[in-house]
Amino acid sequence: MLRSSTSGTGEQMSDAFDFQGLFAKGLPAAAARWGGFPKYNFVGGHNDPDGIPVEGLIASATRVLRRRGQSLATYNLDGGPLGDREMRQFLADKMKKYRGFAPSPDEILVTPGSNPALLLIFDVLIDRGDTVIAEEFTYSGALGRMRARGAKVAGARLDGNGLSADHLEELLEAQKKAGVKAKFIYTIPTIQNPTSTVMPVERRRAILDVSRKYGVPVIEDECYADLLWDQTWPPSMRAMEGSEHVIHVGSFSKYLSPALRLGYVAAPWQLLSQMLAIKYDSGTSALPQMVVADFMREHYDDHVAALKGRLKKKRDALVDALHEQFGAAAEFDVPPGGIYLWLRLPENVDTRKLVAPAQAEGIAFNPGPEWAVDGPSAVRHLRLCYAYPSEDTIREGVAKLAEVCHREFGVPVRSANVTRK
Amino acid sequence: MLRSSTSGTGEQMSDAFDFQGLFAKGLPAAAARWGGFPKYNFVGGHNDPDGIPVEGLIASATRVLRRRGQSLATYNLDGGPLGDREMRQFLADKMKKYRGFAPSPDEILVTPGSNPALLLIFDVLIDRGDTVIAEEFTYSGALGRMRARGAKVAGARLDGNGLSADHLEELLEAQKKAGVKAKFIYTIPTIQNPTSTVMPVERRRAILDVSRKYGVPVIEDECYADLLWDQTWPPSMRAMEGSEHVIHVGSFSKYLSPALRLGYVAAPWQLLSQMLAIKYDSGTSALPQMVVADFMREHYDDHVAALKGRLKKKRDALVDALHEQFGAAAEFDVPPGGIYLWLRLPENVDTRKLVAPAQAEGIAFNPGPEWAVDGPSAVRHLRLCYAYPSEDTIREGVAKLAEVCHREFGVPVRSANVTRK
Repeated sequence: MLRSSTSGTGEQMSDAFDFQGLFAKGLPAAAARWGGFPKYNFVGGHNDPDGIPVEGLIASATRVLRRRGQSLATYNLDGGPLGDREMRQFLADKMKKYRGFAPSPDEILVTPGSNPALLLIFDVLIDRGDTVIAEEFTYSGALGRMRARGAKVAGARLDGNGLSADHLEELLEAQKKAGVKAKFIYTIPTIQNPTSTVMPVERRRAILDVSRKYGVPVIEDECYADLLWDQTWPPSMRAMEGSEHVIHVGSFSKYLSPALRLGYVAAPWQLLSQMLAIKYDSGTSALPQMVVADFMREHYDDHVAALKGRLKKKRDALVDALHEQFGAAAEFDVPPGGIYLWLRLPENVDTRKLVAPAQAEGIAFNPGPEWAVDGPSAVRHLRLCYAYPSEDTIREGVAKLAEVCHREFGVPVRSANVTRK
Repeated sequence: MLRSSTSGTGEQMSDAFDFQGLFAKGLPAAAARWGGFPKYNFVGGHNDPDGIPVEGLIASATRVLRRRGQSLATYNLDGGPLGDREMRQFLADKMKKYRGFAPSPDEILVTPGSNPALLLIFDVLIDRGDTVIAEEFTYSGALGRMRARGAKVAGARLDGNGLSADHLEELLEAQKKAGVKAKFIYTIPTIQNPTSTVMPVERRRAILDVSRKYGVPVIEDECYADLLWDQTWPPSMRAMEGSEHVIHVGSFSKYLSPALRLGYVAAPWQLLSQMLAIKYDSGTSALPQMVVADFMREHYDDHVAALKGRLKKKRDALVDALHEQFGAAAEFDVPPGGIYLWLRLPENVDTRKLVAPAQAEGIAFNPGPEWAVDGPSAVRHLRLCYAYPSEDTIREGVAKLAEVCHREFGVPVRSANVTRK
């Protein structure tokens, strides 16, 4: 009567009973089977495997399990739905020390990554048909979810200092005249995704002033802010006066591990209590919270310094390879931190059409339109994530990408001082 | 310009900017501030703190971080969105050894608990206005979410062997005549929540036959199945012939730790691929997956045996205390496993009205109507979870509950062989 082990293959099961007619209406397309990482993997927020502080995590896991392991018997470690108390205390201390403001631990919600934090914020604020404002080039995960919730996303211009306060004001004024009030402004001030700009303090001030003038809250996504290399952080917007309408989001994914799924939001209880009411996950996993709070309390500075050193070398390898392989065909600003580079190719290139031929060579990248509010405006752009591949793989991958690009679009004409035929 | 640390209190922040007018329509009520656990905590799926295998988890964390820690640099440990490959392999092996069927690891999705697994299933299957079938008394988290998705929930009767196949067939036939086809049948066959019945193999067969006859899939929630004390498991329904329409859900919350947030669903790829498409959490946290797979691979039998011994003692303490304090006023079946007891009080008792006075004495329990499809049908019932409190606390809590109940409803008349006035 029991099934044999060989009868359990997916094909036989799905042949036997068809769920198709039972699915809810309006679901997104089913996921494709996962095929493993491509050889030249320039997508996703993966990090440097050698940057994982393995021995430090072992020491913390040992210490913290011995001290607090029994509390794993209770949901949320007996710390309530906002998250582990020690993790929230670490976050409050870290924000005070490095981000310039000191929320109470009860104003911090721990989430399984910054993306789930953003989704909760979007879900409590967006009604179908609402208008929201995002940077013209922005994180595709946020953009997709805003739209899935039915928001109209208005794109605000970026310049070398990040979100343009002037253009933001133009947008808000035009919306006001049209009788529309945006629900929020979503910005990534420090190491903007994908352009890597860092918003100076004066610009932050200006954005705050404009947003206050129009009464529109600001979501500042600071999930890359720990990875700024050669300069000190500007204060987070939430640290500045008159920032009570700023919702501050951060993550451990970029400076420790994306697989641990740890992020957070600092916001007034009025907002957090609504987010908690729709948060059905019964809390963020306790083990990563316990271990990471213990580890970071002692090792934040050392760890981040070491990781930044590694990432900077990879950034250099990428920049050198782009110069060598693409020459004048590649335009970009050298990232001052983070894990990605935003590349602009010559006018005749459509990066969407580069995806398939690149994939055939084992190369994955994000075509610009996926990271843009107005897709066609970024048709020459692409995003290259460089934290995961080794320096050699970066060099090889960029050389192959140049080859593919030349084959498809005739550029770059010269690579490594050799004219392509 | 930076905020001082004292200015970061919740009150000041929420005074300064009012989010109220910005919230989406139709949100549930905001969460209340968490006030800590009550002294006599008979609610929630908490477990026995002394049952956490702390040293074993430390050994596994050490071993697995040393071997695989670097993979934390990649989302999902380079294992794809279904979850860690080693965890899915453990689950496949465990299902084969203990549950009678052997899914491929690619038919298993790891989720942060069984509740998130259920929610994903509900979200891909339920359209507003759909009918679904659940057991007349059932898990409130599932019930609430089905209704939040807009489902009409039909309650199927329970008897001493769990879900009644006869009543299920009556329901399905009546629905068919009314031109309605239920989207699924949700059942908890092993240690039913809250009644603790265990469905024998013949009943499972009958439920399968009826559900197949009407073409309605079955969600079998086996999240308590590891905690059956003195009998071997009946095979899971998914292990029986003709069960291709059965979706199998399980969890580590009940036999290891609810705070780790680890559950899973075994289902055909056709269903999993739709669940993945709406699963926005970027994967379940890798650290608990790695550690628990390593630990359970070696220690499942020992650990579960030890935990069951502990829980059985607590069950005995609860049963004794109920007999002593409530006497004939308490009707219940002695649970053969699990972490809760479903208690029926005399006719004049309304357990909803017992909540507040009990809370005032530090006692928390689940009033029956919260665990019932038809609330009023369970007005005399309440659910007592006994895994978390110590045996002494159980005895004290039950004595206090009897006191409160007598004060409010005049029963029990006699406690501990003393007649109450």
